Amino acid sequence: MKSERLIYLPLGGAGEIGMNAYVYGYGAPGKERLILVDMGVTFPDMDGAPGVEVIMPDITWLEERVSRLEAIFITHAHEDHIGALGHLWPKLKAKVYARKFTAAIGKLKMDELGHPTDAIVTVGARPDVVEAGPFRVQFVPLSHSIPESAALIIDTPAGRVVHSGDFKLDRSPVVGEAWDDALWQSVADEAPVRALMCDSTNVFSTHPGRSEATLAEPLAELIKASEGMFVATTFGSNVARLKTLAEAAVAADRTICVMGRSMKRMLSVAESTGVLTSFPRVVSTEDALEVPRRNLMLLVTGSQGERRAAAAALSRGKYLGHELKRGDTFLFSSRTIPGNEKGVYKIWNEFSEKGVRVVDDAGGLYHVSGHANRPDLEHVHRLLLPDMLIPMHGEHRHLTEHARIGSEGGIATQVAVNGMMVDLTGEHPKVVEYVETGRLYLDGTVLIGAMDGVIRNRIRMALNGHVLATVILDEAGEPLGEPWVEIMGLTPTGKGGRDLAETMEAELDEWMGRAGRKVLKNDDKVEDDMRRIIRQVAVEEIGKKPEVTVVVSRLLPE
Amino acid sequence: MKSERLIYLPLGGAGEIGMNAYVYGYGAPGKERLILVDMGVTFPDMDGAPGVEVIMPDITWLEERVSRLEAIFITHAHEDHIGALGHLWPKLKAKVYARKFTAAIGKLKMDELGHPTDAIVTVGARPDVVEAGPFRVQFVPLSHSIPESAALIIDTPAGRVVHSGDFKLDRSPVVGEAWDDALWQSVADEAPVRALMCDSTNVFSTHPGRSEATLAEPLAELIKASEGMFVATTFGSNVARLKTLAEAAVAADRTICVMGRSMKRMLSVAESTGVLTSFPRVVSTEDALEVPRRNLMLLVTGSQGERRAAAAALSRGKYLGHELKRGDTFLFSSRTIPGNEKGVYKIWNEFSEKGVRVVDDAGGLYHVSGHANRPDLEHVHRLLLPDMLIPMHGEHRHLTEHARIGSEGGIATQVAVNGMMVDLTGEHPKVVEYVETGRLYLDGTVLIGAMDGVIRNRIRMALNGHVLATVILDEAGEPLGEPWVEIMGLTPTGKGGRDLAETMEAELDEWMGRAGRKVLKNDDKVEDDMRRIIRQVAVEEIGKKPEVTVVVSRLLPE
Repeated sequence: MKSERLIYLPLGGAGEIGMNAYVYGYGAPGKERLILVDMGVTFPDMDGAPGVEVIMPDITWLEERVSRLEAIFITHAHEDHIGALGHLWPKLKAKVYARKFTAAIGKLKMDELGHPTDAIVTVGARPDVVEAGPFRVQFVPLSHSIPESAALIIDTPAGRVVHSGDFKLDRSPVVGEAWDDALWQSVADEAPVRALMCDSTNVFSTHPGRSEATLAEPLAELIKASEGMFVATTFGSNVARLKTLAEAAVAADRTICVMGRSMKRMLSVAESTGVLTSFPRVVSTEDALEVPRRNLMLLVTGSQGERRAAAAALSRGKYLGHELKRGDTFLFSSRTIPGNEKGVYKIWNEFSEKGVRVVDDAGGLYHVSGHANRPDLEHVHRLLLPDMLIPMHGEHRHLTEHARIGSEGGIATQVAVNGMMVDLTGEHPKVVEYVETGRLYLDGTVLIGAMDGVIRNRIRMALNGHVLATVILDEAGEPLGEPWVEIMGLTPTGKGGRDLAETMEAELDEWMGRAGRKVLKNDDKVEDDMRRIIRQVAVEEIGKKPEVTVVVSRLLPE
Repeated sequence: MKSERLIYLPLGGAGEIGMNAYVYGYGAPGKERLILVDMGVTFPDMDGAPGVEVIMPDITWLEERVSRLEAIFITHAHEDHIGALGHLWPKLKAKVYARKFTAAIGKLKMDELGHPTDAIVTVGARPDVVEAGPFRVQFVPLSHSIPESAALIIDTPAGRVVHSGDFKLDRSPVVGEAWDDALWQSVADEAPVRALMCDSTNVFSTHPGRSEATLAEPLAELIKASEGMFVATTFGSNVARLKTLAEAAVAADRTICVMGRSMKRMLSVAESTGVLTSFPRVVSTEDALEVPRRNLMLLVTGSQGERRAAAAALSRGKYLGHELKRGDTFLFSSRTIPGNEKGVYKIWNEFSEKGVRVVDDAGGLYHVSGHANRPDLEHVHRLLLPDMLIPMHGEHRHLTEHARIGSEGGIATQVAVNGMMVDLTGEHPKVVEYVETGRLYLDGTVLIGAMDGVIRNRIRMALNGHVLATVILDEAGEPLGEPWVEIMGLTPTGKGGRDLAETMEAELDEWMGRAGRKVLKNDDKVEDDMRRIIRQVAVEEIGKKPEVTVVVSRLLPE
C-alpha cells in the first residue's frame, strides 16, 4: 500500500467564495480513483463578465480522467454547490449522490436541461454509507441556512477525511437538523480524523455565531408592531427563516403570500420531501389582493438586490397587482453579499421615495449567518482533532486566516487554492502538483472559457466604444466608392461640433488617395492603416481609443 | 419685500452621495439672484457608466440663468465637492470663493484645463464676509476628513441659512480646526437660523462619532509591533490621518515614503498653505530602497481598491522598486465605500498570497469617519435650533431618516432631492418647482449627457456582443458579392461546432436569393431583415440576442 496515496484537489471554491468543486483521489499516483464533491456556480458582474449567465469551474482535468471517476457527491442545494450540475454533468456522467431535499433540487436541474434524473441517487444520512471505489462516504447532518446540509465523512485506506461542507453551530435551527456535538464526538472517536476540509467563510467574525431560533422573538415583535403591509425578503432557500417569518406573521394576524419562483420552488420541495412541516397557509398573489394590507405579509425573493426579482420589481412600482406605499414596511432579513450593495440600496431608496419604511439587519436582530464564526471553527477543530486542516470555501485571505488559527491550535495546515493537488498520506499535507484550472462562462446557451477573449472583447467595447469601417476595393486595389464609418457607443460629435464619423471618413478617404496600389492590394495593410487613422481621429476629437473593426470588400469589376 | 423669496435648489448631491451642487436664490420669483455651492463629481462603475472618467451634475438650469449667478462657493476640496470645477466652470465663468487650502486645490484644477486661476478668490474664515448680490456669505471652520472644511453661513434678507458642508464633531482633529460648540452657539445667537442644510451621510450610525485623535495610540502600537515593512493606505486628502500615521512611524524608528500622485499633491498643498506643519521628513521612493524594511513605512494611495493606484500596484508585485513580502504589514486605515469591496478584497487577497499581513478597520481601531453620526446631528440641531431642516448629502434613505429625526426634534423638515426647488421664505419649507436635472459624463475628453444613449449602447454591447454585417448591392438591388459578417464579443462557434459568422452569412445569402428586387432596393428593409436574420441565428445557435449593425453599400455597376 506504500505507493498509494490520498489526494485532495480543489477545482473551484478554494481561493474564492463560490463554484465549489473538490476532488478526492485514492490510489497509485496518477491512477487514483476519484470522487467529486459539489458542482457549484458563481455569479458574474459587469466588471468581470458582462452578459454572462453563470460561471462555473473548468473541470477539464477531471473530464480527461473521467474513467477514474467513481461518483459525485452534493453536500447541499445552494447554487454555489449544486448550480453547475445540469451544465457539467454531461461531461462526467457519473452517479450523483445527495440527501433527499438536495437530490430533489438536483433532479429539477437535470430535468430542465434534459438529462436523466435517475443519475441522481438519494441517500440517507449516516450510518448509511455510499461505497465508491476505495471511498466509503457518509452524509452527516449539520446546520446551515438551507435544509439537509451535510458534511461528508470520507473513509479511505489512508484514513478518515471530514469534508465540512457549509455549516454553522446551530443547536436550534428551526428547520432541519441541529448541530450535534455528541454526534461529531462519535465521528472522531470512531476513527481518527486524518484531515478536515473546512468552511472558512466567517473566519473573520470573532463572536460565536447565533442560532436561527434567536430571530423568532424580534421578528414577531417587528411584524406585530407594523401598521400597513409587511414585506420580507431573504434567500429563497432559507426555509427556516421563511418559517420563522411566516409564524410571526400568523401571530400578528397576517396572511402569507409568497412571490418569486425560486422561493416557491424551495418551499414546495421542502414540503414534498418532508423537511418542512406545518408551514402556515399561503395564498396566491391574486387572493392576497383581497386581504387588507394590515393583515398581509409578502415573502419575496431578491434580498441581494437582483433586478429581476420580486423585491426590485415591487420597489419600482406595481407588481402582480401589489404596490407598496406609505405605512408599509419592507424588511431585509438578510446580509448583503459584498458587491451587491448598490442593488440593495437602490431598492431601499426606491421604497424610501414611496414612504415605505425599510428595516435591515443593521441592529443585528433580523438575520443570522449560515456559517461558523471563528470561535465555532475553533470548537470544531478541538472536537475533531484532525491531523491536518485544509481550509476551503474562502478567498485567499479567509483560507490563510483559517490556517493560521489551525496552526495555533497545533494542527498541520496547508493553504490550498484551486489547482493545488495536496497529498494527505504523509505526516503533513504536501502540495504535489499544480493543475490548470479556470472558469467556464455560460453565455446565452454556450459554455465558453474565461480566457477565450470573447468576454474581454465585450468589456473593451463597453470601455472604449466600437467603430466599424467598410471599404470596397477591386482586386487591383482600385477603390469602389468611399470608405464608410459607423460608430457604436461613442459620442457622435467631436470637437467644435464636427460629426465624428464624417471626420473619420474624410481622413480615410484622404489616406486612400495617398496610399499606393501596393498598399491597397494588401488587406492586412489596409485594415491596419484604417484602424490607426480611426483611432487617431478618435483620440484627437473625443479623447478615446475605440475598438475598431474594418471590413475590406473586394469586388471584381464587371 | 413680500414678493421676494429665498429658494434652495439642489442640482446634485441630494438623493445620492456625490457630485454636490446646491443653488440658493433670493429675489422675485423667476428673477432670483443666485449662488452655487460646490461643484463636485461622482465616480462611474461598469454597471452604470463603463469607460467614463467622471460624472458630474447637469447644470443646464443654471447655465440658462447664468446672468443671475453672483458667485460660486466651494466648501472643501474633496472631489465630490470640487471635482467638476475645471469641467463646468467654463459654462458659468463666475467668481469662485474658497478658503486657502481649497482655493489652492481649485487653482490646480483650473490650471490643468487651461482656465484662469484668478477666477478663484481666496477668502478668510468668519468673521470675513463675501458679499454676493443679496447674499452675505461666511466660511465657518469645522472638522472633517480634509483640512479647512467649512460650513457656510448664508445671510439673506429672508434670514440666515446654514449650509453645513461635510462635517463631524471632532474636538481634536489632529490637523485643521476643531468642532467648536461656542462658535456655533454664537452663530445661532447672532441671528436665528431660518434653515439648516445638513450633511446626512452617517445618519444611520447610532453611536457618537469618534475623534481623529483616538487613532494615535492604536496606530502607534500596531506600527511599533510590526516586524517588516509597514504600508498604510488612506484617502490622500486625509492629511490628519497621514500625520498620525507618519508620527507613529517616526516613534517606531521608521522613515516615511509617500507613493501616489494625489497624496503627494495634497501633502504639498497642505504644507504650502500652512494648514499642515511639522510633518516628519519624507524620502523619495528611490531613497526608500536604501532603508531597511524594518525601518520603513510607505504611505500609499488606493484605499478604495482603485486598480491604477499604488496599493493595487504593490499588491500585484514590484512597484517603483518596492515589493512586499512575508513579514510585511499592509494597513487599510480607511472604510470601504459600498461598491468598492471587490477591488479592496482583491488587494487583500493578493497580499495574502504573498504572505503579507493585512489589517483593516474591522476592530474599529484604525479609522474614524469624517461625517457626523446620528447623535452628533441631533446635537447640531439642538445647538442651532433652525426653523427648518433640509437634509442633504445623502441618498433618499439618508435624507428621509435625517428628516425623520429632525421632525421628532420639532423642526419643520422637507426631503428635497435634485431638481426640487424649495421656497424657504414661509413658515415651512415648500416645494415650488421641479427642475430638470441629470448627469453629465466626461467620456474621454467630451461631456455627454447620461441620457444620450451613447453609454447605453456600450452597455448593450457588453451584455449582448456586437455583430456587423455588410452587403454590397447595386442601385437596382442586384447583389454584388455575398453578405459578410464579423462578430465581436460572441463565441465564434455555435451548436455542433458550426462557425457562427458563416452560419449567419449562409442564412443571409439564402435570404438575398429569396428577397425580391423591391426589398433589396430599400436600404431600411434590407437592414431590418438582415438584423432579424442575424438575431434569429444567434438565438438559435448560442442563445444570445446581439446588437447588430448593418452596412448596406450601393455601387453603380461600371
